[in-house]
Amino acid sequence: MTRYEQQRQLLKSNFHEFKAIKTDKIKGLEQPPIVKPFDAGSRIIDLPKVSRDPVSQNSIYDCIAQRRSTRFYSADALSLEELSYLLWATQGITGMSKNGLTLRTVPCSGATHTFETYLLIMRVEGIPQGIYRYLPVEHKLLFMFKLDQLEQKIDAITLDQPFVPNFAKKASVLFAWSTTPYRSEWKYDISAHKKILIDVGHVCQNLYLASESIGAGACAIGIYDQKLIDEVLGLDGDEEFVIYLGAVGKKRE
Amino acid sequence: MTRYEQQRQLLKSNFHEFKAIKTDKIKGLEQPPIVKPFDAGSRIIDLPKVSRDPVSQNSIYDCIAQRRSTRFYSADALSLEELSYLLWATQGITGMSKNGLTLRTVPCSGATHTFETYLLIMRVEGIPQGIYRYLPVEHKLLFMFKLDQLEQKIDAITLDQPFVPNFAKKASVLFAWSTTPYRSEWKYDISAHKKILIDVGHVCQNLYLASESIGAGACAIGIYDQKLIDEVLGLDGDEEFVIYLGAVGKKRE
Repeated sequence: MTRYEQQRQLLKSNFHEFKAIKTDKIKGLEQPPIVKPFDAGSRIIDLPKVSRDPVSQNSIYDCIAQRRSTRFYSADALSLEELSYLLWATQGITGMSKNGLTLRTVPCSGATHTFETYLLIMRVEGIPQGIYRYLPVEHKLLFMFKLDQLEQKIDAITLDQPFVPNFAKKASVLFAWSTTPYRSEWKYDISAHKKILIDVGHVCQNLYLASESIGAGACAIGIYDQKLIDEVLGLDGDEEFVIYLGAVGKKRE
Repeated sequence: MTRYEQQRQLLKSNFHEFKAIKTDKIKGLEQPPIVKPFDAGSRIIDLPKVSRDPVSQNSIYDCIAQRRSTRFYSADALSLEELSYLLWATQGITGMSKNGLTLRTVPCSGATHTFETYLLIMRVEGIPQGIYRYLPVEHKLLFMFKLDQLEQKIDAITLDQPFVPNFAKKASVLFAWSTTPYRSEWKYDISAHKKILIDVGHVCQNLYLASESIGAGACAIGIYDQKLIDEVLGLDGDEEFVIYLGAVGKKRE
């Protein structure tokens, strides 16, 4: 098999092969934590409660019709309310299953939700520049650290893509979704990986549409320096690593 | 490397490896067709033009907040207007790039849009049961064929999943997205496959939200009989094959 052919196989449903596998769940191995733990002493920032009002005048039709990948932004900052809304739209918890799994604004195979949301914040009102993590259960932000030369780092992470140089650093915030694949592998074994990639597509589409509804634009970034972004965020690059990026900023008039 | 580890690699950005590859595009090989051709003698069905009015009262906030995978449906049919809207929301063309590529309601790496949308229609007003294909350039439906025992076939395709038996056949319509990977491999070679999976997640999320806005519900189906659905739709299973399914039906009161 060529490399193409091998990789194409992962796009297919491998249910018949999967059925024969004794998964870690079936073996009785302990389920991994459904969200990443955090240190109780961390600096935690409250996020405004998300409600219907600030966005209710925007129709789903308009958001879908107007959606474009946006690579040029105004200098305006996002408000904390807007950031809170984008986090809720992409990974917000809207219920719990009978088994104690989180139900969210986006669907996910078996509610395994393998993602964590890291934010590289450039311009959000009232929030210092730096690296943050979203806590979905608490709907709060965890401050991780300041990063010197944040914008140059973002250039390096996004590989100075020649077709749109440096757009990501001009955004207000860069979303970096990591995956912890074992949350899904525990249950789905070799069927996990296809599901994880599709699921992060669900997440990012909500970032696009929710951004449109607040006069902002998003741009997904699938090409990035894997090693560098994992290092910057302190991820081990194996059990947890970045899978997709999305830049968001206010649209220019 | 274990199978896990191998498959995990595909979740990562392989840009540095990709940069060294002479892609078919760089080699000067001909670009494949951007949509699947169809026979001029086919039976073509006009779809109502999609406009703001029928859906404008639904806010993006409500659609996101209410979204759930819906596995029980009312017996009501979808209208043709509603089906037209769902097709537009998931794969509708909303512009053209300078290079003659389609820009759609969903983002896609390099606008390669490798998907075709097949419909297994059970209950849509004015449309006989059967198998159809969406023509995005024309925004029309192509009738492919009637299928005997359609509902039993859908049971078989969706593998009678024990946790929610037979829900897909109770839906009004089953979306079956195929991929033609070479449309992306031509440009992205070994980087294509991660992109394709994420991109079909973008598509399906719009199916979820647009369904919510018309009082319907959607349910993505990642577990299916690959060989059977490809056979049913007449796909070769290699150059084109089904990658994801989505059931849609009106919600029960």
